[in-house]
Parts: sequence; C-alpha cells; structure tokens
Amino acid sequence: MPQHVRFDLPFNTPVSPHLEYARDRHLLWVRERGLVRSQAGFEEYQSWDLSQAAARTYPHASADDLVVLMNWFSLAFLFDDQFDAGRADRADRIAEVARELIATPLRPAGTAPRVVCPITLAWVEVWEYLSNGMSLTWQARFAASWGRFLVAHCEEVDLAARGMAATLGLDAYAGFRRRTVGIHHSIDAGERSRGFEVPAAAMAHPLMERMRDLAADTIGFMNDIHSFERERRRGDGHNLIAVLRRERDYSWQEASDEAYRMTTGCLDEYLGLEARVPQMCDELGLDADERARVGMGVEGVRHWINGNYEWALTTGRYAADKDGPVATAELAGRGSVDDLLTM
Amino acid sequence: MPQHVRFDLPFNTPVSPHLEYARDRHLLWVRERGLVRSQAGFEEYQSWDLSQAAARTYPHASADDLVVLMNWFSLAFLFDDQFDAGRADRADRIAEVARELIATPLRPAGTAPRVVCPITLAWVEVWEYLSNGMSLTWQARFAASWGRFLVAHCEEVDLAARGMAATLGLDAYAGFRRRTVGIHHSIDAGERSRGFEVPAAAMAHPLMERMRDLAADTIGFMNDIHSFERERRRGDGHNLIAVLRRERDYSWQEASDEAYRMTTGCLDEYLGLEARVPQMCDELGLDADERARVGMGVEGVRHWINGNYEWALTTGRYAADKDGPVATAELAGRGSVDDLLTM
Repeated sequence: MPQHVRFDLPFNTPVSPHLEYARDRHLLWVRERGLVRSQAGFEEYQSWDLSQAAARTYPHASADDLVVLMNWFSLAFLFDDQFDAGRADRADRIAEVARELIATPLRPAGTAPRVVCPITLAWVEVWEYLSNGMSLTWQARFAASWGRFLVAHCEEVDLAARGMAATLGLDAYAGFRRRTVGIHHSIDAGERSRGFEVPAAAMAHPLMERMRDLAADTIGFMNDIHSFERERRRGDGHNLIAVLRRERDYSWQEASDEAYRMTTGCLDEYLGLEARVPQMCDELGLDADERARVGMGVEGVRHWINGNYEWALTTGRYAADKDGPVATAELAGRGSVDDLLTM
Repeated sequence: MPQHVRFDLPFNTPVSPHLEYARDRHLLWVRERGLVRSQAGFEEYQSWDLSQAAARTYPHASADDLVVLMNWFSLAFLFDDQFDAGRADRADRIAEVARELIATPLRPAGTAPRVVCPITLAWVEVWEYLSNGMSLTWQARFAASWGRFLVAHCEEVDLAARGMAATLGLDAYAGFRRRTVGIHHSIDAGERSRGFEVPAAAMAHPLMERMRDLAADTIGFMNDIHSFERERRRGDGHNLIAVLRRERDYSWQEASDEAYRMTTGCLDEYLGLEARVPQMCDELGLDADERARVGMGVEGVRHWINGNYEWALTTGRYAADKDGPVATAELAGRGSVDDLLTM
C-alpha cells in the first residue's frame, strides 16, 4: 500500500484555521470557472482534497489568500492531468497551453491570455492576485521557477506521447524529477502567502539553493511512493519505483524499499543543511529582521515537506482502488474526465 | 534626419579591441547557421554592423565571448524583423517561435528546441555558452527579463497584425516601449560578458530597479528617434514620434522635438539616480568587493546607453534612404528578405 508509507519527519507544521471557509469558496470557484465540468469530475476533484493540501502548505495565509492559493492548486493539478495518450495532437496542445501559462507572469498582471481556455483564464486571474505587492525580484524568481516546471512538464508529456516515458536512467530521472515536481515555485509562493520575502542575498546563497533542491527531491520521491498505485493504473512510467525496478532489476518490493531509502537520504541531507542556516546569516551579515525573514523562508520549506506528506497519506488522488468514470477514463489512457484545454 | 540626432552624453565608454577578430568569425557563423540566407539579406545584415554594437555594449568581453555575443545579437535582431504584414498566419508563427525562445533558458542548457528553425537552434547554442558559469540567480533574472521582452514583442506583432499598431496612447506606449526595447536582459548579459555578477541585494534594491527602467526608457526613446525613418518606411506605428504627433496633434518637427526632450529627461533622471549608488551600497552594508561589482554593473548600463547611441548614429539598419531588394521587401510589408522561422 504505497500511499500509506510513513516517514519519520522530525518536525510538525500547523494547519490553517481557515480551511473550511476557504474550501467552500474554492469549490464554488472551480465550478464557476469551468475547471470542473462534469459531476464525475467534481466528485473526483473533491476526493483529492487539495484544499487540505493548501491549508497545510500555506498555514499562515489569510482566509481570502488561502482561497486563491487553493484556486491556483486546482488549475495546476488539473492541468497536470490533461494528457490523453489516445490523442496524438494532445501533446502539442498541452505545450501551447503550458507556454501560455509561462507567459502570464511575464506580462503586466491582468493581461488577457493569447491562448484561451479555462486553465489559462484561471491563471491570469490567480496571478493578478498573487503577484500583487510582491517585488520585481520575487516575481522574476517565481516566473523562472514556474517556467522551468512547465517546460519540464511538457518534456514529460512529449516522452509519454512518444512511448518513451519509462526510458530514463536513474540519474537522468532524478534530475528530471527535481524539475517536474514543481516545488521551487511552490516554496516561492510561501512568501506571498505570509506577506514577506526572503532577503535576496540569502536566496542567492548556495546553501539555500541546495536546500530548495533537496526539498524538491524529498517531496518528489515521497510523491512517487505515495502516488505509485495511481501512476501504475494510468500507465505512467515516470516514477522512482518503476525506474529503480527497471534499472536495477529489482522486485517491486526492493524498488520500493530503495526509493524509501533514497527519500530519507534527501531529507537527512536537507536537515543537515538547515542546521547551517544561522552560520549563513552570520556570513551574509544579516540583521535581525533579515534573519527573521530567512527563518520564515525555511519554515515555508518545512510547511511544504510536512504539509504535502500529511495530505498525501489521505488524498483520494493517490487512492489505489478506484472505480467509476474516472477509473474508466484513466484505464483508457485519458488523464481526466474533463477537457480543460478548450473552451 | 532623425538618425543623426545627437545627444549630449556626459560619459564616454570604451570599444572592444576584439571587434575585427570577432566580426570575421561572427559573419561566418550567421551564414553557417542559416540566419542569413540570400545575398541581399547578407548585404543588408552587414550594413547593420551589429558587430560594432556588440563591441561597444560589451567592451570588456574576451574575444571568443564577443563572437558569441554578436551571434546572440544576430538572432535577436533578425527575429525582430520576421513579421510579414501580408501573411495572416505569421503572427502565430512568431508567437510560437518566441515562446520557444522563452523556454530555452528554462531548460537544462543544450536541450534541443521543441520548435525547430534557424532562430531557435541558434539560441540553444548561444544560451548554452552564455549561461555557462553563471549563478542560478543570474539565470533566473535573465530568463525573466528575456521572457518579458519576447512576450512584449509578440504583443507588438499581434497589434500590428490587427492593424492596431498606432493606437496606443502616450502612457501606454511608454510602458510598452520599456518592455519591447529589450534592455533589461541586455544589461544582464553585461555581467556575463565581464565575468562578474552584481550582488543580489543590490540588484533587488529599488534604486537599481529604477535605474534599469530609466536606462531602458532612454535607449528605447533614442532608438525611436534614430530608427524613425526605417519605421516609417516599414509602416510601423510603434514609435514615440508617431505617438506624440497623433496624441498631441503635433507637427512631425514638434513631435520629434518633444521626443528629444522626453529622452533627455529620462537620461537626466537616470544620472541623478546613479549619483545615489554609493549611498545604496552604504545602506546595504556592502564590502569592497561587492561595491566593485555594483560599480561594474553601473558601467554595464553606461556601456549600453552610450554604446547603443554611438552605433545607432551610423548603422545602416536605420538608414533613411534605402533601395534594392530590402527596401522592396519592406515596402511590401515584409520584415526581411529571408524567412528564418522555417527550416
């Protein structure tokens, strides 16, 4: 039961007190914006409980900000599922929409999209709200993190479309996973959620860069373990367990055990670096306020590691057993029951 | 004769000693890479003398780096001219290629392009070289600056394709021009050309942000004055002189005079801010090495303001009188004699 694999995290993180309030508003929004269209799609979407994920990963967001963060999660997760193995032109349409999503933070906030579909319209609305009040430096960092993720997502879809999803070796996969997991921009958004910014000098320090990469690796590998059943059902070979099994001729159990060891290895290395943050602050000569903002930045990483972990244990998104229209669609190679790339 | 309008710049900047060496290699490269295909295209391209522009804007680059910076200029300038008013599908192809150019710095360096044409292939090659050795922070900043420019370029093409090139009011035009002039990423490249980086804290300071914006305004407006004849011949209404004439019901001379006043106004404001840089360094508590890197960053801005100015006075690109295949193509609404968006 990979979804229920437990990790021993040495820290706890809070959950937003605004979960219920924000969830109600968010669920209205996804239907109003056409991000969920069918009843089957809505039931599947609700079972994922992305609201909980947002409330755990952004626990200090205001009630209204939390609604928008949930809205953002919805468009990102729903876009992630739009690949349809049965339609050859689908990879091109996904690339077209992905490139539009990359362009949005590069335009003046609120500019109408050039490629129009529910996903791109939703993102323009969400970005206008999320970028408000953030510095140019933060916006450039977010835009680059977000762009790298979306470009990597297109590569993943292209590999799948060419039937090459399961051909990467372990090292190539690990590098690829760091880019497809989408954690760098998710951590960037943590600053927006709490109304602060990590000082630019600290964010540019190799220690912080490495911590972000290790957080991405930890979460990406944990996600591969927890979502393994879902991905096997969907025929998705981009999963650490599958890569290890193929590359090392392991049994499924051996591959799963090794994936677990690799994950805890990344987490341990991350924790070791976290302990060196005060020394980095000394080296950079940061004052008390700047140190506090670095501290909140590190908390933001923890919120993601633990919040995502707690959510993954129970979300219906990774459920091993599924039936009904969603399972039927998935078994047919379709990523989702609703097409969100056309109006 | 707008191309010969003189500005009184209170500083001089050097010219690279490697100009001749780099030009020879660069001119071989543009033909080898298919960026210039016809003899008429090659003659027109040579008349622009982009090699001089690179040698003036990046005077401290090594000889080999200067070749690659020239190569980069060629693909950017040649791409800029690919719009063809007579072909309705051209705006979509330009957007497709622009989005590919945006994606390149978001991928691991050297990754093959998804949209293949001489421009995108050349950019992958140039980016792999230019990004080498630069920090993630610099790469993210460059990718965002470059992406903003390309997205704005697409907007410009879209407006032209809809016959709305000459409809922006003065304020909207000024904001738009700051994004289409492409100066932010050009200044970013100055760090690469000299093998240093401006400290992240300084680059994130509002003073430096404002200086970059004012440099972009100054250069964009100067460019509008110097390229006025070219743009009038090409039917391009995106020019400050044309906007002022329409918006204020000015004569051409009055519009040109006011454009000149606005340009010197931006330059004066820029110079006023430059004088406050030492104070910013104090405020940030920068050490001697960091101050030196801020100083080189400011020099990089000056290299662009003066280097671009000196080049614009003599480049054949902005020549008022032109005949032969290039003038014929331009009068027919075609941006260039060679199509570089297909293989």
